[in-house]
Amino acid sequence: MADWHEISGGITAPKGYRAAGIKAGLKPSGLPDLALILSDVDAIAAGVFTTSQVRAACVDYCRQLLQAKPSARAILCNAGQANAATGSQGWLNALESAMLLGQAFGIPSESVLLASTGVIGQQIKMEAMRSGIPQLVAAASDTGSDAAASAIVTTDLVTKSIALETTFSDRPVRIGGICKGSGMIHPNMATLLAFVTCDAVVSPALWQQMLSRAADKSFNQITVDGDTSTNDSLIALANGQSRTPAITEMNAEAEKLEAMLTAVCQHLAKAIARDGEGATCLIEVQVSGATDEKAARQVAKTIVGSALFKSAVFGRDPNWGRIAAAAGRAGVPFEQENLRIMLGDFLLMENGQPLAFDRVAASNYMKQKASSVVPQGKVSVNSSNDLLLVDDGESVPFERSAASRYLKDDTILISVSIGNGSGTGTAWGCDLSYDYVKINAEYTT
Amino acid sequence: MADWHEISGGITAPKGYRAAGIKAGLKPSGLPDLALILSDVDAIAAGVFTTSQVRAACVDYCRQLLQAKPSARAILCNAGQANAATGSQGWLNALESAMLLGQAFGIPSESVLLASTGVIGQQIKMEAMRSGIPQLVAAASDTGSDAAASAIVTTDLVTKSIALETTFSDRPVRIGGICKGSGMIHPNMATLLAFVTCDAVVSPALWQQMLSRAADKSFNQITVDGDTSTNDSLIALANGQSRTPAITEMNAEAEKLEAMLTAVCQHLAKAIARDGEGATCLIEVQVSGATDEKAARQVAKTIVGSALFKSAVFGRDPNWGRIAAAAGRAGVPFEQENLRIMLGDFLLMENGQPLAFDRVAASNYMKQKASSVVPQGKVSVNSSNDLLLVDDGESVPFERSAASRYLKDDTILISVSIGNGSGTGTAWGCDLSYDYVKINAEYTT
Repeated sequence: MADWHEISGGITAPKGYRAAGIKAGLKPSGLPDLALILSDVDAIAAGVFTTSQVRAACVDYCRQLLQAKPSARAILCNAGQANAATGSQGWLNALESAMLLGQAFGIPSESVLLASTGVIGQQIKMEAMRSGIPQLVAAASDTGSDAAASAIVTTDLVTKSIALETTFSDRPVRIGGICKGSGMIHPNMATLLAFVTCDAVVSPALWQQMLSRAADKSFNQITVDGDTSTNDSLIALANGQSRTPAITEMNAEAEKLEAMLTAVCQHLAKAIARDGEGATCLIEVQVSGATDEKAARQVAKTIVGSALFKSAVFGRDPNWGRIAAAAGRAGVPFEQENLRIMLGDFLLMENGQPLAFDRVAASNYMKQKASSVVPQGKVSVNSSNDLLLVDDGESVPFERSAASRYLKDDTILISVSIGNGSGTGTAWGCDLSYDYVKINAEYTT
Repeated sequence: MADWHEISGGITAPKGYRAAGIKAGLKPSGLPDLALILSDVDAIAAGVFTTSQVRAACVDYCRQLLQAKPSARAILCNAGQANAATGSQGWLNALESAMLLGQAFGIPSESVLLASTGVIGQQIKMEAMRSGIPQLVAAASDTGSDAAASAIVTTDLVTKSIALETTFSDRPVRIGGICKGSGMIHPNMATLLAFVTCDAVVSPALWQQMLSRAADKSFNQITVDGDTSTNDSLIALANGQSRTPAITEMNAEAEKLEAMLTAVCQHLAKAIARDGEGATCLIEVQVSGATDEKAARQVAKTIVGSALFKSAVFGRDPNWGRIAAAAGRAGVPFEQENLRIMLGDFLLMENGQPLAFDRVAASNYMKQKASSVVPQGKVSVNSSNDLLLVDDGESVPFERSAASRYLKDDTILISVSIGNGSGTGTAWGCDLSYDYVKINAEYTT
């Protein structure tokens, strides 16, 4: 069905983009902490931001900017300090950062979008920012996607990146994306950032609509612990450099572009869920039979967010009762007589009543599906709050080669049907392990 | 302000009630598992039940009965099997149980309310029920509250009971209550049951209104893990045996009765939160400055339900950032500049920005407040899923004398102000510990 294919290059795969990531000295650990995405020309810009009442300065800044003019040339992102709960000084620091980048790159500061991640309540280290920005612009290249992806992470185990390509009127059109995830190992870390680049020619209003709908089917359908961050930002640029026919209404090509955008967002969202704190597996919950898509998505997200269900998955317990209980409290009306639950190929419940199934075989299915993941209990944090993988009792800095292993198809699949409606929806999450508690309790003092 | 006082006697403290709890053989462990509350005369009955779409047979049964006629003579409660996800056989078993009790006690079966707790998907052991009911009726006495409270628990660490007394027109009026809590140690255990008795003379409609409002300020304001059960039931009887003037409208005496009812419900609700799975302390979150009570309660419940915040409390980390982030995502609009957060007497945040506070002293405050609680890591489960306290490396059955220690005022208090409104609200919860995960993951297979 999908007539596109995966390519390399991440956010610099689409035409007319450059990216960079450098060590600017913002993180105490000395790891890369300043990232840049540049478009050669003005790009259409759309954004989806945290709904929290407590928001970082960069979130309010981007919202205001995009409301005034839905285009941008650059996205500047720092890690280390979240610039949330930082008052008027935080706002001034955001403005200065945009101005500095505008000067260094020779564009108006109004063409610069901003994102931050790191400790809430800390001001951005502006000296490091001031000296870093010129280096960052100098480092920007059309192969800079990985460097940028590495500079936006905080305590993520892996970087997260994707690029897809299709053709419109025989010319290639590409979408690339990077994101950082749900590592909140250091308390007060702000969570989700995702940046998408695209070289299609599309109208601003349509691009924003596509992005909002894609977010509803991807980032808004993942949950690690139910905590919405102060900094959550998804920003998508479309710079028209594919020079394909302009998309201004929802025709067949628009639908294809939106489907590809949704695929990019879902890939990134699933990578975040899989990399959830303490996670030992990715869980996918597919709900069908609902009256509409929204209801189905709601049920799916409630199940995948249930602490009891997540604990059961960690214990590899095929616990249909917790799935049924979570479905029941999702706020979506259904007849319990219609409830049907499957774990992979195992039918656990039908007509609202449990079936005899092979509990040991079902448990083994869950163990097997999770076997390619970095083993639970192998993650620790050093005094600088850098993430370490523990190998043979020795702490070693995170090894990138583990990433490929981490990204295999090791998803535990739960299918739930709640009736005869045509609404379907999917949500993704991870299990709740000792390490989640450990990671979030053992900051100290 | 409260012109009532605590008395002993639990649900049999009000006039005209008897209660019993026996070992009927419903639980595999052989512990007490069948409870009864009797009123000497027809009592006004009000109920608040789970909002889940997946409900136990007893919940649907009680709803239908109370809709037809808001009165009852008896409440029959079994532990061991939840009678949820049990189909038409489960419904028949509920009807038969009510009929058997009606016959044994000489009342119409329509005067019998039902509640169940235990494993979801299992039919009630009806042979044990049939032989148990006559014994149960024979055992009923006006000192039977503790026996009943013991027979409704599943994996709770302590029984939960309260009785309050006041005077109307110089005659004593009493309210008593028992409940069982959030022990979901055995997967599929169904959660919250609470029974309240009262001897006031009150009209049915008013009694139901009072109970619904009291539930909103108590049981609906606690969270252990955000999972709503299939069996949650709060049932309150008022049998008029105090022979005080009838309360038929919201006058001063009605307000006093409602306040006392609310106090009973809050006492029981807090006892459940404190006894949450793996909990090492009770957390109370007080929110003020909201536009109305509902908004304040919503913010309080969101904070106390945040997995990140709960993990921080387990680690005794005075983490204001997670409190601010949770407040921000509660769905209640406020200006972040007005946010103010206190931990006990420590002011952590003012005007939306963090203050310099003594982190070590604040952490010590949290440790001290939790010190009188049964130590974390001291709870285990045997092969029959009975709860054990581990003492000096030895597993011993749960010791009742630990209960008093467990019920001291060891609450960690968080106060949050979000503006200048007059709305206030409180929520209660517990921390998220390794034991929560352990308890819920290590059922097996």
